Amino acid sequence: MVRVLGINGSPRKYGNTIKLLLVALKAAEKLGAETELVHLYDYDIKPCLGCLCDKQTACGYPCVIDDDMKILYDKILDSNAVIISTPIYWFAPSGVVKNFIDRLTALENMIYIDGKSWAEGKVAGVIACGNDSGCIQVVANLYATLVSMGFAIPPWALAYFNTRGDVLKDDSILLDAANVGRVIVLAAQALKRLERKWYDSDLLEFVREIRRSVEDYIRAEWEKEKSVRENIVRRAEKKIFSAVKRG
Amino acid sequence: MVRVLGINGSPRKYGNTIKLLLVALKAAEKLGAETELVHLYDYDIKPCLGCLCDKQTACGYPCVIDDDMKILYDKILDSNAVIISTPIYWFAPSGVVKNFIDRLTALENMIYIDGKSWAEGKVAGVIACGNDSGCIQVVANLYATLVSMGFAIPPWALAYFNTRGDVLKDDSILLDAANVGRVIVLAAQALKRLERKWYDSDLLEFVREIRRSVEDYIRAEWEKEKSVRENIVRRAEKKIFSAVKRG
Amino acid sequence: MVRVLGINGSPRKYGNTIKLLLVALKAAEKLGAETELVHLYDYDIKPCLGCLCDKQTACGYPCVIDDDMKILYDKILDSNAVIISTPIYWFAPSGVVKNFIDRLTALENMIYIDGKSWAEGKVAGVIACGNDSGCIQVVANLYATLVSMGFAIPPWALAYFNTRGDVLKDDSILLDAANVGRVIVLAAQALKRLERKWYDSDLLEFVREIRRSVEDYIRAEWEKEKSVRENIVRRAEKKIFSAVKRG
Amino acid sequence: MVRVLGINGSPRKYGNTIKLLLVALKAAEKLGAETELVHLYDYDIKPCLGCLCDKQTACGYPCVIDDDMKILYDKILDSNAVIISTPIYWFAPSGVVKNFIDRLTALENMIYIDGKSWAEGKVAGVIACGNDSGCIQVVANLYATLVSMGFAIPPWALAYFNTRGDVLKDDSILLDAANVGRVIVLAAQALKRLERKWYDSDLLEFVREIRRSVEDYIRAEWEKEKSVRENIVRRAEKKIFSAVKRG
Repeated sequence: MVRVLGINGSPRKYGNTIKLLLVALKAAEKLGAETELVHLYDYDIKPCLGCLCDKQTACGYPCVIDDDMKILYDKILDSNAVIISTPIYWFAPSGVVKNFIDRLTALENMIYIDGKSWAEGKVAGVIACGNDSGCIQVVANLYATLVSMGFAIPPWALAYFNTRGDVLKDDSILLDAANVGRVIVLAAQALKRLERKWYDSDLLEFVREIRRSVEDYIRAEWEKEKSVRENIVRRAEKKIFSAVKRG
Repeated sequence: MVRVLGINGSPRKYGNTIKLLLVALKAAEKLGAETELVHLYDYDIKPCLGCLCDKQTACGYPCVIDDDMKILYDKILDSNAVIISTPIYWFAPSGVVKNFIDRLTALENMIYIDGKSWAEGKVAGVIACGNDSGCIQVVANLYATLVSMGFAIPPWALAYFNTRGDVLKDDSILLDAANVGRVIVLAAQALKRLERKWYDSDLLEFVREIRRSVEDYIRAEWEKEKSVRENIVRRAEKKIFSAVKRG
Repeated sequence: MVRVLGINGSPRKYGNTIKLLLVALKAAEKLGAETELVHLYDYDIKPCLGCLCDKQTACGYPCVIDDDMKILYDKILDSNAVIISTPIYWFAPSGVVKNFIDRLTALENMIYIDGKSWAEGKVAGVIACGNDSGCIQVVANLYATLVSMGFAIPPWALAYFNTRGDVLKDDSILLDAANVGRVIVLAAQALKRLERKWYDSDLLEFVREIRRSVEDYIRAEWEKEKSVRENIVRRAEKKIFSAVKRG
Repeated sequence: MVRVLGINGSPRKYGNTIKLLLVALKAAEKLGAETELVHLYDYDIKPCLGCLCDKQTACGYPCVIDDDMKILYDKILDSNAVIISTPIYWFAPSGVVKNFIDRLTALENMIYIDGKSWAEGKVAGVIACGNDSGCIQVVANLYATLVSMGFAIPPWALAYFNTRGDVLKDDSILLDAANVGRVIVLAAQALKRLERKWYDSDLLEFVREIRRSVEDYIRAEWEKEKSVRENIVRRAEKKIFSAVKRG
């Protein structure tokens, strides 16, 4: 059984952001997933205090801040997949979503305490809604963040709407949103079977073994390219400095 | 057998961009993958002509432009996974990488000709190297692009280096690069077993079925929130306009 | 006299974020500016409620939320220039900075109440600090946001540091930070003399006058390009569909 | 007399990208500017060879590559302001625009040859058009790039359109485009009077003078915060490690 957590980052529980999230969650259910919906604005989420800048092991689960994130951490830990649906405020997620993201560091930073990110191997999708531009910038930033925390992103795990009006009238966006629910479940199922951990620190030994052969390869390439590249640099400098001299 | 295509976007075949890519490919081989390395600068890749803006079905495989992309398209089609390694020029991939990305539209746009993106279900990872900032912006943009083409992104499928000097001396970045190779193969193996297609246009019927229930949910939420929200709007306007009047 | 407001978005009042901001402010003072420093974490800044999605004129100065933003709004209104210095949390400004940015909408949205953004013509610079990548993504996003609110960005109005360690030991970054202070003041002085408003809605009449001539130009271009482009589209479709037929 | 260079990055000389650029240029002319329009696709612009990674002074004006950029460099050097109008291909400028941007390094890198960027003090605006999302990501990335080359960005120096259909029918976007032309000229006029250079390397001496006082300030702040922060770190670690122990 795949468990999907839908995270609504909009203060408006009747707007496009939540509509698309509902469609995604219903599609996930259709594929057999168990889903849960949370409204971030219903939780007290204080800003991150940046403890790990003071000491690397001072950030982990549970976070030192005693607020509603402890409920949300547990919901995420209990899920195989999350869908973050955020309104777009100034080409970025809302401040509330940002505080939530910042606080997720407590799960990711378990790398330094438990040897692995507690988000590793979970699956994520992103939905973004606004009246203006910015959707894909939000999606891109959240993808980079989520993958850096250990989440996997399935194909087509995004839906966005950057127009005024009721998104429930736009079949093609609704289809995208339903597919977010679908691919999240398909990917979570496929990856669940995978018993091994993803990031493997033991590869360091392998890295040390192959370093020499990479160096050799690079040296050979440089020998081949050397005269061409050195000639370019020489010509470039000559061209620039003659021009400077001529004024 | 997983086949991984390593794509080097740097003109310098002896620099950090290719070094990290080599490490990733060797790690992929260690996990049993067959790998191939291409240097984009060795291929004649002309800029995209934007045909699909003229007509949606005028972009597909093979592209109308008769250049070396036809070789690269086939290499991608033959691969289960790709790793794009790009230098960072002005906080973005090099122009050569960008032309390559633009031309990949011919595979993605098969949606409109063949009913599905020809990149769907392949796995991707990104490596970015530069002397300055911009790494994560490159990764984020490429992730959003690749997922929108149908690629999947595994956990930790990124490595980057934004410092001068020889990356082969930085064990922690090399470990990241090796893990790019590793997760790409693990994900490609897990997803290969998945017989079904990812994006399912037939969900449109489902979307139409559930639209009413989403509307009902939203209406109920609005009824609950209505008086609070309308009150906020009223107070907000009053506050603003009294201030304006007072000057 | 130019007044510069320095805005510290870090919870750590002894870290690199504030160090660079101090250097920038001191350089501004050296050029004759009056400066003030605020720590966002010392203020109670509640998240934006998205009122303008309910009604366009429900967002303006003063914001309906009764919190410490009223102090910050007035400080911004009293300034000619601002420098935002933010830590980088997950490749983006901290959640506190994001809430602050979201709430600035109340100044920008005066367009719909007073005919102009109350931030128009002010000058802005950005400083970003973190242990990892993301600096330029933060700078880029804030630039797009600030210019869309009516701020001007002078040349070199950025400084960033993405390394561990004490930034006060890095002369070249300190020089960048000092120049942020410098260019902010130079630009504020140059733009202060400008009496006219920037965004001019009356240009709409002009737009209507020239529309026809633009249409004519475009039509003439299309006539010139038509046969070439139509030929490309035709060849493209033929190539794709023959390939599909061949399988 | 202000000279404005309009740069069209679209292969389609009859599409929305060029339409908005024409409107901006006409508005600039209305304010008295002299304008010129170039279509990048008409020029042979080869990809950057990354010479400066081999040697810092091997990149400058004129670039070692002997192609049409030499014409474009001179047009930029002759202008007080530029407007870059680009189509959006995969949430980023077209590959042709990217190659053009990469090659502008030759002007910026004059810092290392002539002591200053040859783009310094020029004014820039950005227009982006596409059928899909990505506009503001393009604008944001180009702003960060242009400011890092020494360009200034005036308020509202952006216009974008992310919808299908003829932009000439959308008055509000046309008004934005006209204002790009307007603000570019206003800013170029205001900054032209400014005789001084922007980035001042001589501030290094000042930086060294104030370093001590910044250190003192930071030390005093740390003394104030120390017990609070150290207490947080202690509590954080204790909380995490007790949880780990409990399992």
